[in-house]
Amino acid sequence: MKLKEIREITGGRIIGDSNPEIKGVSGISESKVGDITYFSNKKLLKELIASPASAVLLKEEITDLNKPQIVVDNPLFCFAGLLEHFYVKPPVSMGIMEGSFVADDAETGEDVTIYPSAFVSEGATIGRGTTLYPNVFVGRNSRIGKECILHPGVVILEDVEIGDEVIIHAGSVMGSDGFGYVFEAGKHVKIPQVGGLIIEDDVEIGSNVTIDRGTTGNTVIGSGTRIDNLVQIAHNVRIGKNCIIIAQVGIAGSSDIGDYVTLAGQVGVADHTIIESGSIFGAKSGITGQYKKGIYFGTPFALPHKQFMKSQSLFNRLPEINKKLNDLQEKVDSILKDKAEVRDD
Amino acid sequence: MKLKEIREITGGRIIGDSNPEIKGVSGISESKVGDITYFSNKKLLKELIASPASAVLLKEEITDLNKPQIVVDNPLFCFAGLLEHFYVKPPVSMGIMEGSFVADDAETGEDVTIYPSAFVSEGATIGRGTTLYPNVFVGRNSRIGKECILHPGVVILEDVEIGDEVIIHAGSVMGSDGFGYVFEAGKHVKIPQVGGLIIEDDVEIGSNVTIDRGTTGNTVIGSGTRIDNLVQIAHNVRIGKNCIIIAQVGIAGSSDIGDYVTLAGQVGVADHTIIESGSIFGAKSGITGQYKKGIYFGTPFALPHKQFMKSQSLFNRLPEINKKLNDLQEKVDSILKDKAEVRDD
Amino acid sequence: MKLKEIREITGGRIIGDSNPEIKGVSGISESKVGDITYFSNKKLLKELIASPASAVLLKEEITDLNKPQIVVDNPLFCFAGLLEHFYVKPPVSMGIMEGSFVADDAETGEDVTIYPSAFVSEGATIGRGTTLYPNVFVGRNSRIGKECILHPGVVILEDVEIGDEVIIHAGSVMGSDGFGYVFEAGKHVKIPQVGGLIIEDDVEIGSNVTIDRGTTGNTVIGSGTRIDNLVQIAHNVRIGKNCIIIAQVGIAGSSDIGDYVTLAGQVGVADHTIIESGSIFGAKSGITGQYKKGIYFGTPFALPHKQFMKSQSLFNRLPEINKKLNDLQEKVDSILKDKAEVRDD
Repeated sequence: MKLKEIREITGGRIIGDSNPEIKGVSGISESKVGDITYFSNKKLLKELIASPASAVLLKEEITDLNKPQIVVDNPLFCFAGLLEHFYVKPPVSMGIMEGSFVADDAETGEDVTIYPSAFVSEGATIGRGTTLYPNVFVGRNSRIGKECILHPGVVILEDVEIGDEVIIHAGSVMGSDGFGYVFEAGKHVKIPQVGGLIIEDDVEIGSNVTIDRGTTGNTVIGSGTRIDNLVQIAHNVRIGKNCIIIAQVGIAGSSDIGDYVTLAGQVGVADHTIIESGSIFGAKSGITGQYKKGIYFGTPFALPHKQFMKSQSLFNRLPEINKKLNDLQEKVDSILKDKAEVRDD
Repeated sequence: MKLKEIREITGGRIIGDSNPEIKGVSGISESKVGDITYFSNKKLLKELIASPASAVLLKEEITDLNKPQIVVDNPLFCFAGLLEHFYVKPPVSMGIMEGSFVADDAETGEDVTIYPSAFVSEGATIGRGTTLYPNVFVGRNSRIGKECILHPGVVILEDVEIGDEVIIHAGSVMGSDGFGYVFEAGKHVKIPQVGGLIIEDDVEIGSNVTIDRGTTGNTVIGSGTRIDNLVQIAHNVRIGKNCIIIAQVGIAGSSDIGDYVTLAGQVGVADHTIIESGSIFGAKSGITGQYKKGIYFGTPFALPHKQFMKSQSLFNRLPEINKKLNDLQEKVDSILKDKAEVRDD
Repeated sequence: MKLKEIREITGGRIIGDSNPEIKGVSGISESKVGDITYFSNKKLLKELIASPASAVLLKEEITDLNKPQIVVDNPLFCFAGLLEHFYVKPPVSMGIMEGSFVADDAETGEDVTIYPSAFVSEGATIGRGTTLYPNVFVGRNSRIGKECILHPGVVILEDVEIGDEVIIHAGSVMGSDGFGYVFEAGKHVKIPQVGGLIIEDDVEIGSNVTIDRGTTGNTVIGSGTRIDNLVQIAHNVRIGKNCIIIAQVGIAGSSDIGDYVTLAGQVGVADHTIIESGSIFGAKSGITGQYKKGIYFGTPFALPHKQFMKSQSLFNRLPEINKKLNDLQEKVDSILKDKAEVRDD
């Protein structure tokens, strides 16, 4: 494909030769001759120049660059589009394959693919064009929307509702019982978890994630939200739309998280926490209480980001601060001693 | 069901009309007309009054409440009992279903249910009334007790002993090899993990949990203990009875945890740690060494809770403390300078 | 087996009676009469003497010990060899078992074992002597080397390369999509993850681990590296040879970790971090930036270990430090007041 044909996909304008042949799409550090790459981090300019890539997507023209450029508003977005164009094949429906188990009264839409050892329980619904890979389990009366992909070993328990175009990666468990007990007569007695789980449209969920159903009422994951691997979301949590939840985050029961919230890796959110839309929490933050829109960081207690960084840099300097304090104490003691001696004279 | 019939299940005494029809059971914030709810958190009084619930379980009568009350000792416990009564159906045995794999010399008790794609290895025993959902694996010579529920995709490796009435949620792995290596000739050489795993009666384990077998000897989970999702328990750990282990906790090898211990979310326990019964550790705590019964908190080192909170609040105030110190230093330097000038005079 | 026959396996020299019958191998605290144990932690000397073990492997002879000794260079290494000798049976090939699914054009080597409900996709290769337990999934064109063991429920997505003698424990997911999105028009748009995952020879990976494929280019796990349970490794991470990655560690995208690096439990590594070979990071450390070979510790920011411990011990003493500062301020204020009064006189 000529670079000018690429431009027809990405939009933007070409700087330099529009005729080189483009055979692949790759990041700067992986690029080969014939690849188009993208440039969005100015620190990587040397790497870009040194790379054998035959063309580059970027936001601002670089004068005298050693390769043709396509100038676009969002280079990474155009890059994603080219990856899709070059490498992603649309799924081909395989139907309900031999060796799968689909209950008689389950409903399956057109063009589904249900692989061997997948199991669809009574009353479940699988929407049009959805793929269930091997060893996927769908529980009683759960509804999976259209054009979803459930990777191998995904478990959807009963009465879970999943929207359209949802992707769930391998080994994730949706709708397991929340962790609810009441202490009585020396035992932790189980509180039956009879609520549901609603995953709205266009959600993507990583591998080996766990999301619990509500005790009563629902756990809800808002549309457009992206959840990374090994995340835990407890019963009755509500996550808004278009959130970014990075790997190994844990969110305790009944917390309410707005839209466009980012939780970085290994963050922990205590139960009944309320987070306003647009908030960002740094890695490993501990979050409890209520948060207005802002940037926060800190473990085990998140503070406003700048405030935390000040305290943290002083934590690193505590030995020096402590020495200063001790030196000062010596000086003051010596002043007081002098004064006492003066008085004694 | 009339409220007075509910009372026959829960015990307690009715305040107000005993005739309303109760059709469901739900938390305050999810309640509808016809539901009975429970009240145990005084902060939610306004919500209770505003809720459409038709009756409420509570511990202390509220005068002039706008709905009938049942006064009981433990409202949440009674609520759990009603959820069970209204919503939980006793399992119906389906037998050994077509498409499952059960070794010839495996033993299966009466009224078991073994779903398609479940696999029971040679020498394994499945107790009476136990359910193995699809894709459950039970290894050689493992014994599962009576009336257990193993949710889809649960893996029980070989020589694991599981008591009666144990629930294991989807995707959890019981009895995988401990992480044991010895360094020799530049390599980490595997130490064969030939011990066992014993899970006592009435334990509940969340989703995607991992519990390793002992190197030699056993890993043990005491009866009545509750383990949340994505918890890691290493080889030769011993956990006592009726503990609460919240999501994403990790417990390193050979640690010994008493009875009625609570480990909050994302806690990490170092190897060979000893924790006395009844201890409580706050979220994200780092735990190493020996702990008498108490309440602890702090990362990466747990301290007695009050002590940690004092240090933590001063951490938050470090910029102010540092400023105070610098101001003080200036004052002292100025005093010393004055004194020097006085001497010079 | 007589102790002198044990010596033929372990090497070393016997101190004391070389004739006792050895029937088993166990750690000190689990040992029974007839067992050989090992001794490498001097704190356990009392336990060793009190133990019923009939012989012991150790590095330095103990005078007048109440049991025969074999003196060897690396007692734990010899102990591992004996565990292997006594308890580990070589796998017996079962072939491609009924109930498994192997694509027509997949290649399987001699002596493979493929259990029921395992699934091997088109174009995949399974090397000689490799075992796929039930519910293992191998994606399109993935290649698994020789004498690998993939425990139940392991998922290998498409285009993953796994070397020889690799062990992957139950429920782990290799090659799922990296967490890559680009923000455009209010949405997090998926960046197709079209790179690969290379796991070199002799790697062992725990249970419910997740390792993502590269965006473009590969994620790489170096030979001899050991990864514990519930670890997350993101796209385009490179881990060197013979590393130790303990449970619940998370490593963000494009990080580059040298050889012989140890990451203790619950460590978090930010994206694009570079760690030099031989470095060690304590539990729960937060790691970001570049690290020369060294020992580091601290959350949310790892510092050189000694420096962190100094700051941490002062953190614990902050109440005392704060009191000292306040006392000092009072003294200084009183000195200044005195001076002012003297001047006023």
